[in-house]
Amino acid sequence: MERQDTGLAFIQKYDNIAWYDNGEVRILDRRIYPAKKVFVICKTHVEVMQAIRDMVTQSTGPYIAAPMGMALAAWECRDMSADKQMEYLRAAAACLSNARPTTRKRLILVTDACLVAAKKALEEGKRVDIAIRDHVVEFTNVRYAKLAVMGQYLAELFPDNGTVMTQCYADTVLGMMLRSCKKMGKTIRLFCPETRPYLQGARLTATVCSELGFDTTVITDNMPAYVMKKEHVDVFTCAADAICCDGYVFNKVGTSQISICAKYFGIPVYVAGAPDPGHPTWDTVTIEMRNPDETLEAMHIRTAAVGQGIKGYYPAFDMTPPDLITGIVTEKGVLSPFELHKYFEAGGVGEY
Amino acid sequence: MERQDTGLAFIQKYDNIAWYDNGEVRILDRRIYPAKKVFVICKTHVEVMQAIRDMVTQSTGPYIAAPMGMALAAWECRDMSADKQMEYLRAAAACLSNARPTTRKRLILVTDACLVAAKKALEEGKRVDIAIRDHVVEFTNVRYAKLAVMGQYLAELFPDNGTVMTQCYADTVLGMMLRSCKKMGKTIRLFCPETRPYLQGARLTATVCSELGFDTTVITDNMPAYVMKKEHVDVFTCAADAICCDGYVFNKVGTSQISICAKYFGIPVYVAGAPDPGHPTWDTVTIEMRNPDETLEAMHIRTAAVGQGIKGYYPAFDMTPPDLITGIVTEKGVLSPFELHKYFEAGGVGEY
Repeated sequence: MERQDTGLAFIQKYDNIAWYDNGEVRILDRRIYPAKKVFVICKTHVEVMQAIRDMVTQSTGPYIAAPMGMALAAWECRDMSADKQMEYLRAAAACLSNARPTTRKRLILVTDACLVAAKKALEEGKRVDIAIRDHVVEFTNVRYAKLAVMGQYLAELFPDNGTVMTQCYADTVLGMMLRSCKKMGKTIRLFCPETRPYLQGARLTATVCSELGFDTTVITDNMPAYVMKKEHVDVFTCAADAICCDGYVFNKVGTSQISICAKYFGIPVYVAGAPDPGHPTWDTVTIEMRNPDETLEAMHIRTAAVGQGIKGYYPAFDMTPPDLITGIVTEKGVLSPFELHKYFEAGGVGEY
Repeated sequence: MERQDTGLAFIQKYDNIAWYDNGEVRILDRRIYPAKKVFVICKTHVEVMQAIRDMVTQSTGPYIAAPMGMALAAWECRDMSADKQMEYLRAAAACLSNARPTTRKRLILVTDACLVAAKKALEEGKRVDIAIRDHVVEFTNVRYAKLAVMGQYLAELFPDNGTVMTQCYADTVLGMMLRSCKKMGKTIRLFCPETRPYLQGARLTATVCSELGFDTTVITDNMPAYVMKKEHVDVFTCAADAICCDGYVFNKVGTSQISICAKYFGIPVYVAGAPDPGHPTWDTVTIEMRNPDETLEAMHIRTAAVGQGIKGYYPAFDMTPPDLITGIVTEKGVLSPFELHKYFEAGGVGEY
């Protein structure tokens, strides 16, 4: 089955994000990209879960890595009875979808879909691992088609010769958005906050933007307000880890303060992504607290004094309320965060 | 002449910030502190200027290092005629005060004072280098006494068991403020944004806070809004590189966006420092643009992809307008940024 182009030069096909084959899942290690292009090889689905937890892949990476982990789980239990295989796969789905708390509900949708595919394969006497992988390709193609539409809607919102600020790594939406700009002959320049502590903005976002030929500037996370005013930023845009149906957006920590500043300067804020039916309201989302020591180092070098009782603190995401958001850019159109019911009325089923 | 205690355990006496003796100026290298405690040795006043430009010392460090550079210049020209010595020293003053554009006017005040001391010493047949150094000690003592008063006013504004957010490294004011808290038996906990790219918040601010026994947490620069809301920050406070008489404050880049967020969350913003008579209005201040490549690395390790045309961007400071500032904490009391004339009416002469 043909895998869709991701629109990202460095990934090309999404089998470069995560791919199952012959009893192993390989995942592009985004923690060290672009300094090195290395794949983490997982021999069990538990290793896949751990890799997601350890941020080997992030953004939309887990929505490919986790179901590929389901294919691997099917390989692990291939010699069991059909009933035992399903039992094993249900346990694997629970394991994989719990990799990170903030994206748990979306990963449940994805892994549940793999269980359905597995059941069908068992009934038809087909290889379960391959059936799951085929299913992942299928629904990822559907998702990528949605993301391409979002990317185009987003590109239409930018003025020509405009200045766009990003936040963290918006993955495929970013690539699709930039390719749409190119198709439309629209020139934009991008300011990418570096996104500490993992520096996804500096490492991933900036790489994609510049590889696609756009004027790309990396700033540190304390500069967005200065840049908005001084460099006349036209639009702030980001993707989201969860968009609740009440218009609250959860994305990489820092998104809320950039949005507050955008509002202060009168700059529109567009969030790309579909509302998540699994999250009717903001209080259904858990913000993941990661290892606090990671804020006490940069590029694996300690920054703060050692042995003085200085503490770190690491919320991976934050919540941006709907009053700060100009529009949610879905594949069904650009909607006010206060009227996301229209997305479902238009037949939207969420981003998965 | 006795040098006042700085209130900072790691500096103790301010001869540990910068000191002239026997034809050289030694400056504590804050770029690598606290990982290492190293002094940069300058053999000429031009080297002192370069050290300030290279950020060997920052915050209020240059107000000691630059005049110590004047003492060194006096040593350099000691064998010239009195007239030639004054000519040499005037050129040295111009050189040293131009080390960094944003603090130029305050450094002119400081180096001009050294010229007066030099003239007097020449007339009285005294050693000019020592006379300048004595004068630096004298006016720095006066400045430290002012900072102690500011620190106390600031501490009085904190609720007991309160949560305080800082920005960058507020140097002596920070130490004075924390010592005042201790004297008043006031417990506070501090959140220190790390302050990229030089990480002064993680390295210097957090060290001082924890050495003085306060609960200290380092966060990355994309976390202030999250922390303000989640951890119930009571006060945001910082010092300033320039406070204009019209209430505009120039401080480390990031200050403006933290202040915008503080306003959004209803948190007071207190800036410690005196208005600068050399800066009647905001447009008299030049924001220094530093080497843009420094935003493409962290702890001297490259973050962004190399050779892809990705650009950096590094404004060292930003401007916070008076409508975002609750009070300017001067040694003459806490004033609205809109009524700084009261500072001068009360006999204030600026921070120098």
